[in-house]
Amino acid sequence: MAKILYVAIGNEILMGKTVNTNESFIGEHLVAAGIPLDLTITVKDDVAMIANTLNHYWEQYDVIIMSGGLGPTHDDVTKHAMCAFFGKKLIFHNDIWEKIQKMYANKSFDLPEIAKTQAEVPQDFTPLNNTIGTAPGLYFYKNSKHFFAVPGVPSEMRFIFEDSILPLLLENYHPQPLFQRTIRTIGIPESILSTSTQQIKETQKTKIAFLPKPGMVDIRVYGTSEDEVSKIVKLFVQHIPQQSIYGFDNDTIEGIFHKKMMASGKTLSAAESCTGGLIQSLITDNAGSSEYFKGGVVSYSNEAKMEILGVRKATLSRYGAVSRETVKEMVLGAKELIGTDYAIAVSGIAGPDGGTNEKPVGLVYIGTWGKTGLVITKNNFSGTRIEVKNKTALYALRQLEVEI
Amino acid sequence: MAKILYVAIGNEILMGKTVNTNESFIGEHLVAAGIPLDLTITVKDDVAMIANTLNHYWEQYDVIIMSGGLGPTHDDVTKHAMCAFFGKKLIFHNDIWEKIQKMYANKSFDLPEIAKTQAEVPQDFTPLNNTIGTAPGLYFYKNSKHFFAVPGVPSEMRFIFEDSILPLLLENYHPQPLFQRTIRTIGIPESILSTSTQQIKETQKTKIAFLPKPGMVDIRVYGTSEDEVSKIVKLFVQHIPQQSIYGFDNDTIEGIFHKKMMASGKTLSAAESCTGGLIQSLITDNAGSSEYFKGGVVSYSNEAKMEILGVRKATLSRYGAVSRETVKEMVLGAKELIGTDYAIAVSGIAGPDGGTNEKPVGLVYIGTWGKTGLVITKNNFSGTRIEVKNKTALYALRQLEVEI
Repeated sequence: MAKILYVAIGNEILMGKTVNTNESFIGEHLVAAGIPLDLTITVKDDVAMIANTLNHYWEQYDVIIMSGGLGPTHDDVTKHAMCAFFGKKLIFHNDIWEKIQKMYANKSFDLPEIAKTQAEVPQDFTPLNNTIGTAPGLYFYKNSKHFFAVPGVPSEMRFIFEDSILPLLLENYHPQPLFQRTIRTIGIPESILSTSTQQIKETQKTKIAFLPKPGMVDIRVYGTSEDEVSKIVKLFVQHIPQQSIYGFDNDTIEGIFHKKMMASGKTLSAAESCTGGLIQSLITDNAGSSEYFKGGVVSYSNEAKMEILGVRKATLSRYGAVSRETVKEMVLGAKELIGTDYAIAVSGIAGPDGGTNEKPVGLVYIGTWGKTGLVITKNNFSGTRIEVKNKTALYALRQLEVEI
Repeated sequence: MAKILYVAIGNEILMGKTVNTNESFIGEHLVAAGIPLDLTITVKDDVAMIANTLNHYWEQYDVIIMSGGLGPTHDDVTKHAMCAFFGKKLIFHNDIWEKIQKMYANKSFDLPEIAKTQAEVPQDFTPLNNTIGTAPGLYFYKNSKHFFAVPGVPSEMRFIFEDSILPLLLENYHPQPLFQRTIRTIGIPESILSTSTQQIKETQKTKIAFLPKPGMVDIRVYGTSEDEVSKIVKLFVQHIPQQSIYGFDNDTIEGIFHKKMMASGKTLSAAESCTGGLIQSLITDNAGSSEYFKGGVVSYSNEAKMEILGVRKATLSRYGAVSRETVKEMVLGAKELIGTDYAIAVSGIAGPDGGTNEKPVGLVYIGTWGKTGLVITKNNFSGTRIEVKNKTALYALRQLEVEI
């Protein structure tokens, strides 16, 4: 079993300017591959400190993955640290330089001289393909140990990790699989969920974790026995109300919604008030969504609700913009205006201002038109403005998803 | 000057289930206090590994802050690791137990027996007050070294850090304040920016860092001399094209846009194609945006462009949906439909499919109507679908922001 160390090079992380999302990406993908991460170190952009870290951990680890500090500017020192530690010189690679020149060919900028340093690779290191940016990944193999260095920019790190690093590790190690299964729930607070399932216990070979997120709770079961993990998962599924389980593992509400819409052959429109476009943005994050999503309206003012969606003035003045009646006319308005089979509409008070005793911040009406016709729900969401927006969007997608 | 190490205890972090936001919180607050963080280590919930880490780093560091693994369940082992390393026993503190009982008095469920372990503190350690949760922070002082352990739950960690740890550190160390200033730029690649400013050099008391983000670069200048930091910042501002500097320090494009719109007294509408609602969602993330933002359209299909926004069929068939001409009609259509002073419209190819040689993925037209009237730009964005959406949204807000 390979022992793996991840080293993040980053003053910015240590100074709190950047949250290290690379750590969780690498951690998640290594666990899924059955070769989990053992330790992470975040160290400054400093040749001596990077070399010291390598010095201390080199013998203890089989694989070291290092990220950050591969850019072209003076504060990028990772390659120098590697040269210092491994006793190498930088070699200019003409093929990399040509590739960099091609990447710049489409831009309106001239290629600066400094970009040439991106084509320099430590002697005996193998450059790893990076189609997202100009800095190649770097790979060195010595005494059965694998050393990788990748840029810190998440999209570049992710590309090289999936394209080069993971395949190489899987070739070299025979992973001991960790079986894990996540039950993803919406609408039930963690305390209720854990109390109503407290008779379900971990075994020697399994672990159970409750991971609350705004408006949702993941229940993660993992361990070395696939059989025991599935038994525990089955118990949870039996003891949790069906409608609150929206998926498993990497399922997201947006993702399931997208898959079901793609398969349905139906078309969709939307009318958003308090979410301000977020629902439609989540839908269109999915490639291919233009096949079913035809468009929608962000009716942020009463005028927009009336003039574009045809909400009646009498409805707005009698019931208000945040009401079952207005949301009903918004759903029907969007459906008719854009001429779609299905539609989704929301109106609510995202806060922090605008709440009253009768209609407090977090009050949101969600209307959907799906296979059984109109469904309208009244919801009370807690949290900040952004949290109310996010919860509304996910609950709305979930409300229509069960109606696709 | 104190050398500070932060140790995160967390299987969840190493397995990629949790992003370590505690690291950036601690990093940011220590920098602001003038006693920056030197190193971070993330280690498993494992007594031997935690003790090994302390063993290796204890002599090198003046301050160690450890988070996580202080909960009541079997997988919380941090206190046992501390006892093993420091050679201590756990002592039951009755006053903590009484406090825990009080905290549970308001809850609707009974206090479980297991909660008693929360009142156990290693011998000679000082408990630190935690009003958010049941686990107290822990403090130990030995040979001029300070050791802290806090729960991993962010809200509890933050409370104890601000309430106990930071005041204690500031009493013991005489921080050298760090002055920092960030210049935030958009539209110029890092290598061009660094080349065109290469005559600006760090001094003994200052550092310069280039921090690339998708489509944007931050230039951060920091050091112990306020005077030298401002001199260097001034030089950068002189050498960078004015229009590419959108702000300083914690400024965001969305934030500046919102402030200027609030002050303008003007109204705004939007018509989005490839961003699918993201621009309007960013605008409405700001409390108070309903004062100027009246609504908009997500015209994801040609039909929606024609029927809602009044884009002409001839324009779409002659120039295509992604064209200067279509975007022009979208801006004017939104402005007229919703009756606003200003408007913003985008049409482009977010990818990954849908690109051609003539119109590749990442081609985006941005149209804005601001104080000087119509402005349309042609942009070529690189990256994933989500990155193209994000870059388009921020560039569009910036394009109108200079026209408010």
